[in-house]
Amino acid sequence: MRMLNALLAVTLVAVTASPLAAAEAPRARDLGIPFDGNPGPLNAITDVAGVTVGETTLISSAGPGHEVRTGVTAILPRGRDTLQSNVFAGWFALNGNGEMTGTTWIDESGQLEGPVMLTNTHSVGVVRDAVIAWRIRQGKPDASGYWWSLPVVAETYDGYLNDVNGFHVTPENAMAALDGAHGGAVGEGNVGGGTGMICHEFKCGTGTASRIVTVDKHAYTIGVLVQANYGIRDTLRIAGVPVGQEIRQHRVWHLTDPERGDTGSIIIVVGTDAPLLPHQMKRLAKRAALGLARNGSFAGNGSGDIFIAFSTANAGAVEDAPLNTATFIGNDSMDEVFLGTVEATEEAIINAMVAARDLHGQDGHYAIAIPHDELRAILRRYNRLKAP
Amino acid sequence: MRMLNALLAVTLVAVTASPLAAAEAPRARDLGIPFDGNPGPLNAITDVAGVTVGETTLISSAGPGHEVRTGVTAILPRGRDTLQSNVFAGWFALNGNGEMTGTTWIDESGQLEGPVMLTNTHSVGVVRDAVIAWRIRQGKPDASGYWWSLPVVAETYDGYLNDVNGFHVTPENAMAALDGAHGGAVGEGNVGGGTGMICHEFKCGTGTASRIVTVDKHAYTIGVLVQANYGIRDTLRIAGVPVGQEIRQHRVWHLTDPERGDTGSIIIVVGTDAPLLPHQMKRLAKRAALGLARNGSFAGNGSGDIFIAFSTANAGAVEDAPLNTATFIGNDSMDEVFLGTVEATEEAIINAMVAARDLHGQDGHYAIAIPHDELRAILRRYNRLKAP
Amino acid sequence: MRMLNALLAVTLVAVTASPLAAAEAPRARDLGIPFDGNPGPLNAITDVAGVTVGETTLISSAGPGHEVRTGVTAILPRGRDTLQSNVFAGWFALNGNGEMTGTTWIDESGQLEGPVMLTNTHSVGVVRDAVIAWRIRQGKPDASGYWWSLPVVAETYDGYLNDVNGFHVTPENAMAALDGAHGGAVGEGNVGGGTGMICHEFKCGTGTASRIVTVDKHAYTIGVLVQANYGIRDTLRIAGVPVGQEIRQHRVWHLTDPERGDTGSIIIVVGTDAPLLPHQMKRLAKRAALGLARNGSFAGNGSGDIFIAFSTANAGAVEDAPLNTATFIGNDSMDEVFLGTVEATEEAIINAMVAARDLHGQDGHYAIAIPHDELRAILRRYNRLKAP
Amino acid sequence: MRMLNALLAVTLVAVTASPLAAAEAPRARDLGIPFDGNPGPLNAITDVAGVTVGETTLISSAGPGHEVRTGVTAILPRGRDTLQSNVFAGWFALNGNGEMTGTTWIDESGQLEGPVMLTNTHSVGVVRDAVIAWRIRQGKPDASGYWWSLPVVAETYDGYLNDVNGFHVTPENAMAALDGAHGGAVGEGNVGGGTGMICHEFKCGTGTASRIVTVDKHAYTIGVLVQANYGIRDTLRIAGVPVGQEIRQHRVWHLTDPERGDTGSIIIVVGTDAPLLPHQMKRLAKRAALGLARNGSFAGNGSGDIFIAFSTANAGAVEDAPLNTATFIGNDSMDEVFLGTVEATEEAIINAMVAARDLHGQDGHYAIAIPHDELRAILRRYNRLKAP
Repeated sequence: MRMLNALLAVTLVAVTASPLAAAEAPRARDLGIPFDGNPGPLNAITDVAGVTVGETTLISSAGPGHEVRTGVTAILPRGRDTLQSNVFAGWFALNGNGEMTGTTWIDESGQLEGPVMLTNTHSVGVVRDAVIAWRIRQGKPDASGYWWSLPVVAETYDGYLNDVNGFHVTPENAMAALDGAHGGAVGEGNVGGGTGMICHEFKCGTGTASRIVTVDKHAYTIGVLVQANYGIRDTLRIAGVPVGQEIRQHRVWHLTDPERGDTGSIIIVVGTDAPLLPHQMKRLAKRAALGLARNGSFAGNGSGDIFIAFSTANAGAVEDAPLNTATFIGNDSMDEVFLGTVEATEEAIINAMVAARDLHGQDGHYAIAIPHDELRAILRRYNRLKAP
Repeated sequence: MRMLNALLAVTLVAVTASPLAAAEAPRARDLGIPFDGNPGPLNAITDVAGVTVGETTLISSAGPGHEVRTGVTAILPRGRDTLQSNVFAGWFALNGNGEMTGTTWIDESGQLEGPVMLTNTHSVGVVRDAVIAWRIRQGKPDASGYWWSLPVVAETYDGYLNDVNGFHVTPENAMAALDGAHGGAVGEGNVGGGTGMICHEFKCGTGTASRIVTVDKHAYTIGVLVQANYGIRDTLRIAGVPVGQEIRQHRVWHLTDPERGDTGSIIIVVGTDAPLLPHQMKRLAKRAALGLARNGSFAGNGSGDIFIAFSTANAGAVEDAPLNTATFIGNDSMDEVFLGTVEATEEAIINAMVAARDLHGQDGHYAIAIPHDELRAILRRYNRLKAP
Repeated sequence: MRMLNALLAVTLVAVTASPLAAAEAPRARDLGIPFDGNPGPLNAITDVAGVTVGETTLISSAGPGHEVRTGVTAILPRGRDTLQSNVFAGWFALNGNGEMTGTTWIDESGQLEGPVMLTNTHSVGVVRDAVIAWRIRQGKPDASGYWWSLPVVAETYDGYLNDVNGFHVTPENAMAALDGAHGGAVGEGNVGGGTGMICHEFKCGTGTASRIVTVDKHAYTIGVLVQANYGIRDTLRIAGVPVGQEIRQHRVWHLTDPERGDTGSIIIVVGTDAPLLPHQMKRLAKRAALGLARNGSFAGNGSGDIFIAFSTANAGAVEDAPLNTATFIGNDSMDEVFLGTVEATEEAIINAMVAARDLHGQDGHYAIAIPHDELRAILRRYNRLKAP
Repeated sequence: MRMLNALLAVTLVAVTASPLAAAEAPRARDLGIPFDGNPGPLNAITDVAGVTVGETTLISSAGPGHEVRTGVTAILPRGRDTLQSNVFAGWFALNGNGEMTGTTWIDESGQLEGPVMLTNTHSVGVVRDAVIAWRIRQGKPDASGYWWSLPVVAETYDGYLNDVNGFHVTPENAMAALDGAHGGAVGEGNVGGGTGMICHEFKCGTGTASRIVTVDKHAYTIGVLVQANYGIRDTLRIAGVPVGQEIRQHRVWHLTDPERGDTGSIIIVVGTDAPLLPHQMKRLAKRAALGLARNGSFAGNGSGDIFIAFSTANAGAVEDAPLNTATFIGNDSMDEVFLGTVEATEEAIINAMVAARDLHGQDGHYAIAIPHDELRAILRRYNRLKAP
């Protein structure tokens, strides 16, 4: 069968660093897909100064019937300074069939303490406690005297390809993602927490994008990183084109369960250097839903669509001195920031899909990456293919 | 100037019934715009059995500098039975720069008591109290002994065309909308609360659409009615086509304030006969955001994007006897209802835009309806024009 | 009947200024009721610099069967400067069987624009639109170019004593409350929006109190104003003493409906000069619930228990320039502010109850004020009467 | 030093079953503390038919400087049937400085799948994943085809007495709590997740209580279980008596940090057999805040005050068939249920305090239980001691 032949050989080792292959692969706009707005130099969340990303990718076999296709992604809002300084943050659940720990404290404090971690559904706990343990190993508590006792860990479900009930993620995997976090290019596709993920019935995973926006002559950067695992084929739109109604083969659920609905999830992480207060961060988190919708999501019942946004501005203001000072963009001036968030989210998801590679895993299941040539042909047919 | 020549003569009378002209005008799918899903027979919120809609349209002059372009729309979930029986309901604010009264009681009780009323921003109060007064005139309180003391009234801002500071809506206007509510075809465009509204810098207003979905072999209807007044030109997508980047003339804000952002709003009312519990109605209300996003909204700061959803099922369960029984669709079976809500919202907004007519008003301001022929030409160019 | 004899003669005129009688009457701590914490000089919300309060009290007869016992209270966070400068604000619904308009914009913007208005349930609309009209009369829009188009108006239900279905509150009544707002002593008991209110089956109404707290050597003031109309007799605790189980006569509902539950409501307004961000204002609003609970509320189904908190600090920060600066107390230093809010709320409610006077109204209904001597005797019996 | 002499010898073994000693000890009402309402036969959450509770108590030394004083509590809403059938549920964060995993799915689905687990702050992760692993070991997924993939695990911080950074809770500890869950009497004080907890600067921990209420002639049971670890001494009220202002010795924070505020937390679990819909469960969860406030909490910044409520009624309705039927109490009839929740919460906390025993732990820290005789003497002085 053609699709089976097309499957990549499975690498039977755990890979911690971003695979070079993924970094060199074409990204969505390399294929001529048109997007609005102005991306940053990396078109990645790491365009936001200070943000670092690390990942642990686990692709191996733990014995017959135990195929491991999973991982951990760590996003540190201020890189190593995350140890000492929080960020203002907000979050939003479009459809809460998922987990993001630590959110009640984000709502209450307006702040995110520590990293955002992404992994599979059944490994949220091990990653959560590992974040605390890792923080303790770094030495003293922060300026306020606290450890990171309420870590933020989110998940999507990779049980179609991964032996999720085998609990293969270890504390060391989580710590390696934290230790390896770096600026610069971010691995996309089958890497980190996104390793085993599928969206719109194509292989998917981690994706990122960014936008530069101007507010009152100041340039600000908005970066988005997604772990994309949602959606059915029918509703997929790319740059507005009904691609999901055109590419009818390679359907994942069609092979195993034609009636299966949207049982995936998507975690969206928005970072920015725009100075915004906590209630404004929640506004940003909500805009991620609009970028997601452009690609055709209807937020199915089974989908844990949970979004978090943070701002790296106001570093001094979030150490919780008795009296603090923060700057913030006026509400009336936020439209560019909103629009940039929508646009970067839209592109980050398509980047995840374009970067992903065919993968087979548990129970003979496999998922095919979206075929680039066919995608380009469709865009051309709808007069939406951008000249290179 | 061509655009000025194209303006309709202003009718200097208040019109209470739906104007026939609007009813006979082509709707979005008559123009060949493609939409997904199966609409009901009227493709309107009144496809949901029992729902009635009434409107008062005010187009007149109250003296020099006081052009009246406003109105009131009333949606009664159970028609006249709304007097006796509540509906399960939920609501969601995508961007809360607007008013919808009565929402804390919806959250608390899970029920909507009485109609949903739509009007302009400065007339919410008069309409609210008029709903109570109208209810009192109908005789006895409901089975629980209550009047409608916490009415639901929502608004969008028509001050660009309408003399909104003139407070021209009267209690009688609100009562006329309630008295005149009926099933069947629903007026679209410049009618009711939508009379003076503008979206994506085209004249807009009231729009409606519906979908029939099947859950476990039962057919359910989802109806949507919007009062659409949001958005900038640039981001408008119709059926995924970047129409707003193609039609650059006729821009409203461009004429008066080129830097003006998204200062409008949209109220979306979702009704269904699918049996759903209150927390599930909130889920439906959230899906309206996804339909809105498909057309290009980024929920600008100035936009009051507030959505309400109700279910006409379980008529007996919402009279608040000491013990009640309700049926409901299991969460696992809701995907079709979600998707139908997204699709009907997408179409209802475009229906509002297509049905609207050029209108001039206050301060020499005017807004041009989207030109149908040009729209069709663009859709054809993007291979998205559907054969009639 | 003794209780009827005790009723005050009804004043058949509308009173706009605070009645001196109420101001001279003993307040809760004058009776020897013990409270924790340090009140400000007025023990009133007006201890917060800049806050002004105005009220219109309507006690008259509009003909047989139409007894008017209602009014309007206006709280202006910055007095006249409220015209130009917003305040950071947050709100919370403990039990949402009530109305507070304008809350979605508070959530979204983090700001309160204009006053907080309190009135009866069926007059929210007229007061709302009147606030907009009053603002327009004051001249130009604010620095951001806006009117107060989304006013905050809250209510409790006075239909037991007042002809609430007569809609006796006029726009002029609301404007008079705004025009008459002043600093200094605040009328309590049967005044303003609180005129016809009842709590724990005693006559009640408007009450206020304040606390001075110290955070890192800075003194801040927290002021609370309540419109109290909630509760059944049984659960009333004053200073922890089960007063409601001791005073069994004078029960209001007992006279007309022995099975009647908690169908009242309470609106609590918290103002402070402590610099706090919007998400922290929501935290303050929640603490009002804890002060309320100390007096025995269980937030019955019929009770609209809705609270709003604002901070007068950061006057320059809320004019929504493109870039703004705000100071704020660190989360770790907020405990004193929280505790002060709880304490001031507890006392403001008892102040409303102590200041109220017997009142009869609609349908021969009447409510008796809590008997001061009996209350003191009970406190003495429980070793809780404080020496004067 | 007297207090040191009074300390119990530390048991150096892990105890899984409820210690008999705790069960035989006097409970709050045995001491003559007056409470309102009618408790069930056990005055425990297990009065709600089907609810089972298990706990693992860890009191041992893991070497010098590593004193273990912690544990795990498991509450299974339907006992073993929890494997197959969800419960309607809702939750509320009064102050979100804490963790309760699984809450976004509760909000979205209206249901709780699986148990509620309570442990210390740094062990939430290990317990969470252990719940999934335990569920998988029980065999097939539930009727809907799901595992418990989004477990609910909440925490309070026992780092004052316990070596919380030692991560001493194991998956086996969590599974033992699940395996050992039983009906009947529930261990209180230093047991399970409550082992190392402190409230109002007295040793505290696990507590429970119940109420029987009547709605339209049907008797329903409301049970509450708390893991209480909040509060400062000053504000403690017991049965309304200012006990915290009377017992000034034995203060915990006073010994180590006189300026320390409220840095504890309280998790409150409300279970009932009253038939209620999900949005009504959230209403119940909010009422827990009012019971807590009666005892003097002001919900300090450091306090994670998070509450969850579930209903065991409607067993058949929550298996998510395409169409389901549920019964529910009308909103107008909920007051007794609300009041019972407030009362049971108030008593459960005092039960936790009364049942606790002196405990020393990490770093030479110790906490003294509230002295029963002194407490009785104070209540007598305030005329609040109930005759036995």
